[in-house]
Amino acid sequence: MQLTQFTDYSIRVLIYLAVHGEKLATIAEIAQRYGISKNHLMKVVQELNARGYVQAIRGKNGGVRLRASASDINLGKLVHELEGGTSLLECFGRNNTCVITPSCHLRHAFAEALNSFYRTLEEYTLEDLLDDEAQLGLKKILLFDVA
Amino acid sequence: MQLTQFTDYSIRVLIYLAVHGEKLATIAEIAQRYGISKNHLMKVVQELNARGYVQAIRGKNGGVRLRASASDINLGKLVHELEGGTSLLECFGRNNTCVITPSCHLRHAFAEALNSFYRTLEEYTLEDLLDDEAQLGLKKILLFDVA
Repeated sequence: MQLTQFTDYSIRVLIYLAVHGEKLATIAEIAQRYGISKNHLMKVVQELNARGYVQAIRGKNGGVRLRASASDINLGKLVHELEGGTSLLECFGRNNTCVITPSCHLRHAFAEALNSFYRTLEEYTLEDLLDDEAQLGLKKILLFDVA
Repeated sequence: MQLTQFTDYSIRVLIYLAVHGEKLATIAEIAQRYGISKNHLMKVVQELNARGYVQAIRGKNGGVRLRASASDINLGKLVHELEGGTSLLECFGRNNTCVITPSCHLRHAFAEALNSFYRTLEEYTLEDLLDDEAQLGLKKILLFDVA
């Protein structure tokens, strides 16, 4: 079972911004820290901006920061939103061609399992992932010569 | 969030065999009914055979049938086995390059969510998906001129 790379990168961006604080961060700097493509991250930031998770400011002195506080970013809700376009199995999608769909109970069982997955994730906010120890470690890794 | 096509097809094969009964079915016939590639299904059947879910008999009069009864095939266990090689996020896999892994609590939250997913699926066996009404519908769709 896989989440999209887009979701993975989105969460990494939000973690970066949460430890980075109020100051604007640049996409170039986030891309460099994680060693991932700037182009990928631009799309990720656009989407997070459109969904209200971050504030992206254009221009020479622009950058990006969290729009909400980390305690307001619910992990289950976030992942659910970002994974909205994917289908767990073919019968969950729009282009389903599985002939047994009308008589198959599989979708029901899997929908229930998916629900359990999201309910568990909903118990976490971004802040819950960032206790003092994690903050310290993440700052060392991500911001060592930025601050 | 996506399961592999391999898992999807594996479950379809098991459903087919469950409604088909004791008689041997052929891969060609299953491929034709579902409108999916015979080559794909050969690999699926090989894997299900190796894992003890089906009995595949070679030769002219060969074919495939369930090895266990449908009530012994646990959906959570099956999907867990088949999805064993996939990673929910990069940090769940062997080729993880995410720099924040040592200080990131994300994996813990997602592992818990994945666990909830499988625990819910474990409440179902293949037989649970095949109540009388489902059996009747599936037989009509899959076996209409085979029996």
